[in-house]
Amino acid sequence: MPAPFATLADFAALLRDDLPGPDAAAIAAARARDATLTKPPGALGRLEEVAAWYCGWRGEARARVRHPQVAVFAGNHGVAARGVSAFPPEVTAQMVANFRSGGAAVNQLAGVVGARLDVHALDLDRPTGDITRGPAMTGAECVAALMTGWEAVDPESDLFVAGEMGIANTTPAAAIALALFGGQAGDWTGRGTGLGDTALAHKAQVVERAVAVNPARGGLEVLAALGGRELAAMAGAIARARFLRIPVLLDGFICTAAAACLAAEAPGALDHALAGHVSAEPGHARLLDRLGKVALLSLGLRLGEGSGAVLAIGIVQAALACHSGMASFAEAGVARG
Amino acid sequence: MPAPFATLADFAALLRDDLPGPDAAAIAAARARDATLTKPPGALGRLEEVAAWYCGWRGEARARVRHPQVAVFAGNHGVAARGVSAFPPEVTAQMVANFRSGGAAVNQLAGVVGARLDVHALDLDRPTGDITRGPAMTGAECVAALMTGWEAVDPESDLFVAGEMGIANTTPAAAIALALFGGQAGDWTGRGTGLGDTALAHKAQVVERAVAVNPARGGLEVLAALGGRELAAMAGAIARARFLRIPVLLDGFICTAAAACLAAEAPGALDHALAGHVSAEPGHARLLDRLGKVALLSLGLRLGEGSGAVLAIGIVQAALACHSGMASFAEAGVARG
Repeated sequence: MPAPFATLADFAALLRDDLPGPDAAAIAAARARDATLTKPPGALGRLEEVAAWYCGWRGEARARVRHPQVAVFAGNHGVAARGVSAFPPEVTAQMVANFRSGGAAVNQLAGVVGARLDVHALDLDRPTGDITRGPAMTGAECVAALMTGWEAVDPESDLFVAGEMGIANTTPAAAIALALFGGQAGDWTGRGTGLGDTALAHKAQVVERAVAVNPARGGLEVLAALGGRELAAMAGAIARARFLRIPVLLDGFICTAAAACLAAEAPGALDHALAGHVSAEPGHARLLDRLGKVALLSLGLRLGEGSGAVLAIGIVQAALACHSGMASFAEAGVARG
Repeated sequence: MPAPFATLADFAALLRDDLPGPDAAAIAAARARDATLTKPPGALGRLEEVAAWYCGWRGEARARVRHPQVAVFAGNHGVAARGVSAFPPEVTAQMVANFRSGGAAVNQLAGVVGARLDVHALDLDRPTGDITRGPAMTGAECVAALMTGWEAVDPESDLFVAGEMGIANTTPAAAIALALFGGQAGDWTGRGTGLGDTALAHKAQVVERAVAVNPARGGLEVLAALGGRELAAMAGAIARARFLRIPVLLDGFICTAAAACLAAEAPGALDHALAGHVSAEPGHARLLDRLGKVALLSLGLRLGEGSGAVLAIGIVQAALACHSGMASFAEAGVARG
């Protein structure tokens, strides 16, 4: 089935007009089941909320996570030439090879939770435009990347994580955040893979200049002008998951910046997504706050690749295992309080 | 092999004189390996620290969690007659049956992480003494419970969680915390399974009275006077794990209060333990702070049973999977920054 969009305007119309909502009856049924389980009301904390959210999107009163999928998207960035990363851009392709041979962190984490892992390299030999001089992508380039993400989601998956790899990509993420939410460039600029103080100050100037040079408006226009192919692919995949009613866990700063473009275009576009973790990149907590999301995990990760969200798959699996598997007070013969 | 103690004084001497420390060479080797892995230094945040801690206690430079064990201890409390719980004391035995038939939350959570789960009911038909009138246990009763915990730990396990079930047992836990760390009874008293405001105020009075009636000194004396059989069993198990060099994840308020008795008797007695989670019971965060522990998870759980710590087993498994399984820069042909 071809993707139901050919232009950014088509994609924007899909987001604005056609997003499915959760199944209210399934949420009510899931909550009703929760109230019968052998535990004091509320004693499983956020696991109870996670279970009801998941059931709502799946349209089931009692569900399990059986086929989690992780898709890692990789892209290169013209702005890498501005000295905004501690690593050289060749590392993007080297890490793609590492993902494919199973040696990266995300491979190990996906193994722990039993998730399928796919890797998509997007035109690594053709970096996006340098955003300090003009737009990252044309509309057509952005649509192509959105489509890669759109097609990457397996309709049989039941929980989805979009990860990324792209040397320098905290810079476009910071530029997107600044363009969408305002404030100062320094509010959104962090050390990425490990910049020192001087390089950090320089990076903030690069972010500020990128936003000044690209006066985009609207989530998708910002994504095309300031993002990158892997960011657009993540946005496309997260949107596709919504149409397939597959719940999503957001990863770190870059993933969340890409996702924020969807929410800027259509409020509620991320209702099917929870924040898997909050990263050590300081802009991430601020970005989650603007999106009204509270992270499931806070373990100081700042790796990308989908790593934090993949770790959080285990929390969602646990929430559903409790919700589906526990005995009721009646079944277990336990007195209520 | 019989337990190497017959009295509380024997047990105290074991803790004070014979506790093994971590293997410094294994920690150094684990850190050296971490520095070679295909990620920016520090990018896995707390997962890196967890891996080094685990390797140190196991005495290995590269380790995996293969045999996690959860032992749930259940006890009944004379103080339950003082109206400090929303549930009647019969529920302790009913929940033990639920654990044994696989219907409780901890059963589902243990299943998700592949942990063995054992249940130990300690003299449920013989509640401890009412701590508002005298000590919970004699020294001999406390030793018997410590021994149950001591013997519950499988020497082949490689990660251990002690959980509990015991209607009213947040009251002895709060009394222990007040006796060990001071402050006001209200600082340590929470709603447990769901008390209203009036019952909460009454519970704080009960806690205050228990500590006034039982002027115990020293961690083990406090444990015997104010604790309960399942708390003493948890303390015995956590101590045994130390002698077996099995890392421990602490669960919630009750588990942590039991563990705190060990640390009060011998500083450093909990160095082999990480806080698996911080619960919604308000005294728990304060207790962890006094013990210098920062929880891995904060998801608002307040169930006990070991539930939060069992959830955290997945985090430790993930940390070791990354540490053991990732490729080095050299192996993967990835350039360093």
